[in-house]
Amino acid sequence: MIPIVAVVGKSNSGKTTLIEKLIPELKKRGYRVATVKHHTHPLEIDTPGKDSWRHKQAGAQTTFISTPGALGMVHSVDSDMTPLEIRNRFIDDADLVLAEGFKQLSVPKIEVFRSCAHTEPLSTGDKNLLAIASDKGLDIGAPCCGLDDIEYLVDIIEQQVITTSGPDIIVHVDGVQIPLKPFIHDFMRNALQGMLQALKGCEDAKRIDITIK
Amino acid sequence: MIPIVAVVGKSNSGKTTLIEKLIPELKKRGYRVATVKHHTHPLEIDTPGKDSWRHKQAGAQTTFISTPGALGMVHSVDSDMTPLEIRNRFIDDADLVLAEGFKQLSVPKIEVFRSCAHTEPLSTGDKNLLAIASDKGLDIGAPCCGLDDIEYLVDIIEQQVITTSGPDIIVHVDGVQIPLKPFIHDFMRNALQGMLQALKGCEDAKRIDITIK
Repeated sequence: MIPIVAVVGKSNSGKTTLIEKLIPELKKRGYRVATVKHHTHPLEIDTPGKDSWRHKQAGAQTTFISTPGALGMVHSVDSDMTPLEIRNRFIDDADLVLAEGFKQLSVPKIEVFRSCAHTEPLSTGDKNLLAIASDKGLDIGAPCCGLDDIEYLVDIIEQQVITTSGPDIIVHVDGVQIPLKPFIHDFMRNALQGMLQALKGCEDAKRIDITIK
Repeated sequence: MIPIVAVVGKSNSGKTTLIEKLIPELKKRGYRVATVKHHTHPLEIDTPGKDSWRHKQAGAQTTFISTPGALGMVHSVDSDMTPLEIRNRFIDDADLVLAEGFKQLSVPKIEVFRSCAHTEPLSTGDKNLLAIASDKGLDIGAPCCGLDDIEYLVDIIEQQVITTSGPDIIVHVDGVQIPLKPFIHDFMRNALQGMLQALKGCEDAKRIDITIK
């Protein structure tokens, strides 16, 4: 399961700025990062009149725009998807998901606090708080570091959140075990865990067998 | 496996307009449609300076924007993803993918041809051509219909492309079979088929067993 860390903080505390610093340090250490941001405004992700916008207006549930450098997607939803739902559904090639905001999520968190913007931090006593990055020393039940102590914060993420362990997966085709390269192995394991966690009866499974015939 | 139909035609032949008409008719018949469009220009899917754009600029491999009505995604790629790659990786809740363009793909196709825009159609002799929608009668080896014969075109898509059959999938948790609702069943089957088709040795499998422990 790809771990999620939420970077939380009050409005204008510097969440995006911290994420902009965390990503390069995580990449330097070899991790692939996906991010999730929440907006209450309608998505300005496509331009009225463009072909892909027209697909969506005509009723396509999901519209993709494939370009040489990036794939764009607009997926209709009935209500905002959470980072967990997004991870389970769409992310399989990242080592970490950084969510900006989503303070209500029960995932490991880093708070950003700037005393010039606010008088009180957001996460006092939050048991999911990994650390608080602040322009002044704070004692709210988690380590406090400076706003630029990026290596320290990534050390904490690395040590406490990113894990490489997980259950093993074995595939037999007509009775013969076939080898799985590490990427395929992890991809299948993560995808299957994502699918199965929604099923009643799978919560505490020690062994799961799936047969396709 | 979710089927793909490519709507092809020369530039300015009316591909987007046809897709805009096909989608409501497909939806009326109960099908969920995803679309894929190609652009050679960089993605104008996010706005410079916005938080999610900053995530991407900082090096996030994938950035999501979650809003109440839609989920947006920008996913970095080294080269354009094809509709097949996009389908296998990101689409699991559609009954049909309509691709606009992608004439080189080996998937069922519908050509749009307008004699006022071009003198010759694109797909003469293409064995994947399901039909050609045109403003004049053409004999190029596939049924020809008018540009507004949408029900006829959707009949052909329904009869020749959308199939509901496929292999069965069975899940045992610690030795006990658990029931799968139809949506979950089809979702898991399609996702597993997508994963497995890339593996050597799975091409002609009659039975596949996957164990997670």
